[in-house]
Amino acid sequence: MRKRYLMAPGPVAVAPDVLLKMAEPIIHHRSPQFSAILEEVRGGLKYLFQTRNDVLVLASSGTGGMEASVANLCAPGDTAVVVRGGKFGERWAELCEAYGVRAVNVDVAWGRAVDPADVAAALEAHPEARAVFVQAHETSTGVKHPVEALGELVRPRPETVLVVDAISALGVYDIRTDDWGLDVVVTGSQKSLGLPPGLAMVSVSEKAWALAERSTQPRYYFDFRRERKALGRRTTAFTPAVSLIIGLERVLARVREVGLPALFAHHRRLAEGTRAGVRALGLSLFPEAPSEAVTVIRAPEGIDGQEVVKLLREEYGITIAGGQAQAKGKIFRISHMGHLDEWDMLVALAAVERALHRLGHPVELGRGVAAAEAWFAGAAA
Amino acid sequence: MRKRYLMAPGPVAVAPDVLLKMAEPIIHHRSPQFSAILEEVRGGLKYLFQTRNDVLVLASSGTGGMEASVANLCAPGDTAVVVRGGKFGERWAELCEAYGVRAVNVDVAWGRAVDPADVAAALEAHPEARAVFVQAHETSTGVKHPVEALGELVRPRPETVLVVDAISALGVYDIRTDDWGLDVVVTGSQKSLGLPPGLAMVSVSEKAWALAERSTQPRYYFDFRRERKALGRRTTAFTPAVSLIIGLERVLARVREVGLPALFAHHRRLAEGTRAGVRALGLSLFPEAPSEAVTVIRAPEGIDGQEVVKLLREEYGITIAGGQAQAKGKIFRISHMGHLDEWDMLVALAAVERALHRLGHPVELGRGVAAAEAWFAGAAA
Repeated sequence: MRKRYLMAPGPVAVAPDVLLKMAEPIIHHRSPQFSAILEEVRGGLKYLFQTRNDVLVLASSGTGGMEASVANLCAPGDTAVVVRGGKFGERWAELCEAYGVRAVNVDVAWGRAVDPADVAAALEAHPEARAVFVQAHETSTGVKHPVEALGELVRPRPETVLVVDAISALGVYDIRTDDWGLDVVVTGSQKSLGLPPGLAMVSVSEKAWALAERSTQPRYYFDFRRERKALGRRTTAFTPAVSLIIGLERVLARVREVGLPALFAHHRRLAEGTRAGVRALGLSLFPEAPSEAVTVIRAPEGIDGQEVVKLLREEYGITIAGGQAQAKGKIFRISHMGHLDEWDMLVALAAVERALHRLGHPVELGRGVAAAEAWFAGAAA
Repeated sequence: MRKRYLMAPGPVAVAPDVLLKMAEPIIHHRSPQFSAILEEVRGGLKYLFQTRNDVLVLASSGTGGMEASVANLCAPGDTAVVVRGGKFGERWAELCEAYGVRAVNVDVAWGRAVDPADVAAALEAHPEARAVFVQAHETSTGVKHPVEALGELVRPRPETVLVVDAISALGVYDIRTDDWGLDVVVTGSQKSLGLPPGLAMVSVSEKAWALAERSTQPRYYFDFRRERKALGRRTTAFTPAVSLIIGLERVLARVREVGLPALFAHHRRLAEGTRAGVRALGLSLFPEAPSEAVTVIRAPEGIDGQEVVKLLREEYGITIAGGQAQAKGKIFRISHMGHLDEWDMLVALAAVERALHRLGHPVELGRGVAAAEAWFAGAAA
């Protein structure tokens, strides 16, 4: 039996006690027992999202939550500003196209963070924009977009909402839904929460509810209004993914116990230690404004990033992620989300060193690991 | 620790080995290992659906599969014939309304099966109908609709498809997708497959694909075309519910091993034995054409069916289901789906006897159980 490591930025490794919790006998979703769990989840999500808004839970992957946002907030023919700086920014644009929403794209080079001034200019040119769609963290490039600054731009506009895909950001680093004026925030189960994929969670502000009441888009399964009504009855509109919600209750209880600051510090620590190793190897990061969710490393000259990923998976039993679309082959990505600790980061660095060595890139075996170890030990130079 | 029994028609009891299988470490969805699992699932679903069509797997509850069918097959302004004889028939009509599809409702009294002649008349009156939407088994009433006969009506119409919600029918009794001309068949994970909720599966015929290519409805997450394209690359369009698909592979392997006839015989046996007990108690079934998925019992005069359900749940640790909407209080429902056997049916009958006794309905304790036991033993009078 080969030991396997999952260090991709979603799906992530799930803690064994959470796996076993979800393996308990299924309970019926229309029961006082399940309603009590849902109430716990509801409170836990408000804490996680740093919001007083209700957070809806959908049985879908994160993309379902993104689609729900477009369909509930924008009517056909509406205009929306889309920050497009990676695969998931492109997904916002594709969703707008699918729903007949005119996307004003603010294009950002992959690896760069959006300049709020560019979004401000788009909003000046299109005051009729119903929404601004953005990623808090663009998983495909490892970039953090400045959503707090965007909140300041959008807040004074009574008819425009800010919609943040925080699928790989929420729970990783500080995202203040209410304080920053983030009208809609979307996350998924398979990132910082460390659950299997299959749940999307969406917080909705009062400003966003007003649009949801007005949108003429066809929707049913992803209709915010149905879910809010159901939540009032301590249930869900449709059969929920019961086992994942049981897992969610467990994970959220732990989040409240350790507290958000500790959670953020954990991700920061894994990211910084890993990056000390990356630097020691003479490698560079791909993103300009890197997030704590994932370390995205530029493949060195002459090395195909996909080959690094393949070697790790096939030879060493370690799953990291490569690049997607235009970044394919140019980068590889090591997750800091999920059931991982600093020892795992040493493993990842050792595997990367070995793969680069094997592929003919000059590397001193152990150098990155040593640097990371020193960083984690608080003994970095 | 109280022992608990789940005997509602979805979510259902999941076998412990399947729960533990799904508790194994999560694997990445873009990997050869997951692709191989998906290929097994693909073959297993074709066997289960009795089809050569591709079966798409969506991360959603069954309603997501129903919505996908409406959105992919009907354009706004299209006409569709809807068989409406229970809560899920009403859901088809609601979906049509949400998508601007004109529903010609064939209303059927709750508890009755649709008369194919009524559907034929609706099709005569509306030859432009793009689809006929129907349940194979209407879970809210326990009725089987004659989908084979409807297949004969729809097959000769080149521009009309038959869409069957078989969420609580597929795997329970014989549903021949290809032989009967069922263009789209929808099922869910939390019924006969005995998995937790969170997956919808949809088979799509060539005739239906032609409509899907043509539909102008907005759709993205539920876009059949995206999923078919992904399937060709041995993957899914969006992050799949990995743990549920691992469970699905396990369950489908077992279905192929025992064979569909044995699976159908199992459900029939549980249903018939239970009904021998029901008759012995002087109780009657609610549906005219009962399915093998669930036994739906009419609450006796003066007894509130909801009280029966509540007593079982709160006092005896046994979850069955009550009636919904207009059937609320009038019926209670015992599932034959999920990880249940004939001994469980004796438990359910004993609990029903005790609850009726407790609620003041004259009942001879043990009479229903004895009759069911005799039936199961092959010793029925």
